[in-house]
Amino acid sequence: MADSSTGTFRVACVQMEPHIGETAQNIERSSALIAEAADNGARIIVLPELVSSGYVFHERSEVEAAAENIPGGPAVSAWADVCRAKGVYVVAGLPEAADGAFYNSCVLVGPEGHVGTYRKMHLWNEENSFFAPGDSGFRVFDTPYGRVGMIICYDCWFPEAFRACALDGADIVCVPTNWVPIPGQAPSERAMANVLCQANAHSNGLYVLAADRVGVERGQEFVGQSLIVDHTGWPLAGPASEVDAEILYAEISAEAARAGRTWNPYNDPIRNRRPDAYESLVSAPSSTDDGRES
Amino acid sequence: MADSSTGTFRVACVQMEPHIGETAQNIERSSALIAEAADNGARIIVLPELVSSGYVFHERSEVEAAAENIPGGPAVSAWADVCRAKGVYVVAGLPEAADGAFYNSCVLVGPEGHVGTYRKMHLWNEENSFFAPGDSGFRVFDTPYGRVGMIICYDCWFPEAFRACALDGADIVCVPTNWVPIPGQAPSERAMANVLCQANAHSNGLYVLAADRVGVERGQEFVGQSLIVDHTGWPLAGPASEVDAEILYAEISAEAARAGRTWNPYNDPIRNRRPDAYESLVSAPSSTDDGRES
Repeated sequence: MADSSTGTFRVACVQMEPHIGETAQNIERSSALIAEAADNGARIIVLPELVSSGYVFHERSEVEAAAENIPGGPAVSAWADVCRAKGVYVVAGLPEAADGAFYNSCVLVGPEGHVGTYRKMHLWNEENSFFAPGDSGFRVFDTPYGRVGMIICYDCWFPEAFRACALDGADIVCVPTNWVPIPGQAPSERAMANVLCQANAHSNGLYVLAADRVGVERGQEFVGQSLIVDHTGWPLAGPASEVDAEILYAEISAEAARAGRTWNPYNDPIRNRRPDAYESLVSAPSSTDDGRES
Repeated sequence: MADSSTGTFRVACVQMEPHIGETAQNIERSSALIAEAADNGARIIVLPELVSSGYVFHERSEVEAAAENIPGGPAVSAWADVCRAKGVYVVAGLPEAADGAFYNSCVLVGPEGHVGTYRKMHLWNEENSFFAPGDSGFRVFDTPYGRVGMIICYDCWFPEAFRACALDGADIVCVPTNWVPIPGQAPSERAMANVLCQANAHSNGLYVLAADRVGVERGQEFVGQSLIVDHTGWPLAGPASEVDAEILYAEISAEAARAGRTWNPYNDPIRNRRPDAYESLVSAPSSTDDGRES
């Protein structure tokens, strides 16, 4: 599948509410929603972060009970079954068990089975108590619909993540996520997570498909507002509800994204980069409040 | 001035309309508006890109007539005079003549005179016919009010530019700009240039002070909508008018930006970076439509 098709096709972001401790039911429910989106014509379908397990772990044993080896575990097997039956691709999050560690991972699964895995590189808050930092780097995979990258939730706060996908030729970045409220959000303002998706879609000339969860789990609120962003940075569908389950749909085209990156005879946001001036992005130590360079 | 003060102070973005071919008048007018903003309490004052010259050059001789050596030329000298008289800092854009080339530059000027120069690293469209690509890299300068970085207009499309400033300890990024309309902008949506400023302010935990021009010059429309963005990513002032001259004011604090980067015991958007996974940002060749890696 070295060549990517370039026609217009439908994508979906499944906003839903997983329940912690109910892994089998979460897998069954997510599989049913994938089938629904597929029946409605979607060919790439994105589901939330940790959709098979829920998010708010209190004990390591809870992670262990929900985590699986990839591929071959129950969630990826179930999703692959639906992908095979419906001829679709799915990106969805799950806890991965590998080499004695757990990762907050997501998979790309298609009619041919498991295509690739991404292990979350930037961990949020208490995830650090249960998951190892990702070691997959940012990988982009060929599908018949275009080149697909994957990042998860807090990764959106790092434009480097989107850029690394773009530099590897991504037409689409799928974002399984569990966005939590951000202090200072004014009701009149679009959610900052959405703003980040828009900015990075625009700056890289690629689609962003963000599927969030909803609900309150063990006191932790999630904000919904799943979003499908055009390669120009403008929303194609959503933001979805802040509280209700919902499936977003939009029509996209990898060819349109590729053509759209040529803004005029001089300008393309990828080709115009100045790597000669970006050295600090890979060499600088992290800045600290008490140890800044002067 | 190795130590930066941390108190709250006022900043201003001067949205105005320079006129091509009227360099002396542009300098006089910009100096008067700096004085006005200073009299209203602003201590860091940002003006548009190429504010001394106007933007739409048709002939190289027009650039030559408006460009100056830095420091010592008429614009920087005039601005330094106001800074000295009023005790303020100014960031403003002008065409720079140096070593037989012209640069689309901006300066940081203070009561002590010229502090630093930034030469636009990412050139937009026909600027390529008149200006050499910047060679200054992204530099951050100490002021009594915090560490100040500068980027210009199209640089905002490159999150690497904001990030490089952040990694050098910037509390504030000043953006002299001449934003032009972007195709696909829906009237109900905030301008994409504003979205980019918000996303990068938030992702880096720093203030963004963007001063745009207004007016139509030789058929080229400019979009105004200057913006002062809090370190959280939310607008503090603006977006300003799309067509009228206007001065935006807001109160900011470098200390608040620094403290605000600690989101919880685990997370800080600078410290949580994964440079080990960003190597492609400095090593990958620019992606092209016909030469993508598979």
